[in-house]
Amino acid sequence: MLVVKIGGSTGISLPHIADDVATLWTDAPRMVIVHGGSATTNAVATQLGHPPEFVTSVAGYTSRRTDRRTLEIFEMVYCGQINKGLVEMLQSRGVNAVGLSGLDGRIWEGKRKDAIRIVKDGRRMVLRDDYTGKVERVNTSLLTTLLDAGYLPVLTPPAISYEGEAINVDGDRAAAMTAAAMGADTLVILSNVPGLLRAFPDEASLIPHIPAADVARFMEVAEDRMKKKVMGAEEALADGVRRVIFGDGRVEHPIRRALDGHGTVIGG
Amino acid sequence: MLVVKIGGSTGISLPHIADDVATLWTDAPRMVIVHGGSATTNAVATQLGHPPEFVTSVAGYTSRRTDRRTLEIFEMVYCGQINKGLVEMLQSRGVNAVGLSGLDGRIWEGKRKDAIRIVKDGRRMVLRDDYTGKVERVNTSLLTTLLDAGYLPVLTPPAISYEGEAINVDGDRAAAMTAAAMGADTLVILSNVPGLLRAFPDEASLIPHIPAADVARFMEVAEDRMKKKVMGAEEALADGVRRVIFGDGRVEHPIRRALDGHGTVIGG
Repeated sequence: MLVVKIGGSTGISLPHIADDVATLWTDAPRMVIVHGGSATTNAVATQLGHPPEFVTSVAGYTSRRTDRRTLEIFEMVYCGQINKGLVEMLQSRGVNAVGLSGLDGRIWEGKRKDAIRIVKDGRRMVLRDDYTGKVERVNTSLLTTLLDAGYLPVLTPPAISYEGEAINVDGDRAAAMTAAAMGADTLVILSNVPGLLRAFPDEASLIPHIPAADVARFMEVAEDRMKKKVMGAEEALADGVRRVIFGDGRVEHPIRRALDGHGTVIGG
Repeated sequence: MLVVKIGGSTGISLPHIADDVATLWTDAPRMVIVHGGSATTNAVATQLGHPPEFVTSVAGYTSRRTDRRTLEIFEMVYCGQINKGLVEMLQSRGVNAVGLSGLDGRIWEGKRKDAIRIVKDGRRMVLRDDYTGKVERVNTSLLTTLLDAGYLPVLTPPAISYEGEAINVDGDRAAAMTAAAMGADTLVILSNVPGLLRAFPDEASLIPHIPAADVARFMEVAEDRMKKKVMGAEEALADGVRRVIFGDGRVEHPIRRALDGHGTVIGG
């Protein structure tokens, strides 16, 4: 079983990825795709007069401020435009894809954060009307049902709270949880860089391999957007995934290249 | 088996509908929901600087001009905002809903129209870059798989062409095709009027019952947006659905009221 996470940053080539998925799917039809949509959401939110806002937690992590209107725009882009665009690309290549969010069949369940402690202009604040959380449980039965029936699941945030509310969750960590829950051998995380860089954005500083035991040490090397990918990798490996590969999503054959060891291979 | 089509016009109460679905689902978990999103799509398209355009076919039917950008906005609203909003409402009421478009698992397949003959300013024209079509085949296997596993399918356009392109299709007729293909006993079509009106918009002119054999005669009574509902009803009845009910989607218990005979009952 292979889980592939496709980032939502600019530069990632969905057609190249879809080409690769079509080939891999023919050979080994046990795969789950997870995707993001951050850059497009920022653009659409701005066009709709509700520009994106990012907050920094007390622990130093950046995340999207998700009020109810942001959640709606988020769903438009992630679950509408990008999810269905990707399903269409896969269908036109002969892959019987089924696009889903974490709400559908409660695939991704977790706790909505009732208070988010942030730092703004040097001062600590608490946000209470935010729809964010973390995936704590992957209900694999719908994914397994679809795979057994020959469909390729294409999954995207939001997730669902235990109370049934949509919650914005980090896609990389959700993909890691999914890989672990599905008993995946490999998790490939594609973004718009060649992998983990020792000196971002210098692509020549690519770190080719990290032993599973050392991954936590690399948190400090990771620049902002990479931190959650490293965290996801650590969680996936701890939960039984054999290797996590950070690959380049901008090139031809991005998944095959990652599986061949191009990028940053963690564990393995 | 019951199929419920929820219109996309303003005034329809999704919370009332979700309440009703939650009750009905507990008693008889064989149901498929189909929904639209026309009014919201118009608003969002305007906000995004790509205002809606409607064309009138040579035969006199109005439909949305669907260029590639419109299709994208259409998917944002139908498959993102409304589909996931409805899934969230159902999940928070304890119904394990799964939201899908006709692209997913190729549920709704049909032919993309390669040329649309329209009348504009009294002159005939042909549109060739339009992404519209008609559902010709319902691939029921994914719907059956989901129902058998205890999930409620919540379906929305677009459909998929035989070549794997997304195509805008009429939701009422797609719901009718779905009801027929799933062997449904009843199709309920909820809109923002009490049913078929003899003198639209006079709600006192409601037609309470139409025998199945007479439905074609009522095409001329139907105002523009009702024409495709009447056409859908005719197709559903011809393909084995026992009754089609046009119900009021603005009121409490809209589905139960329709099943109790409120609205326009066709056949039965």
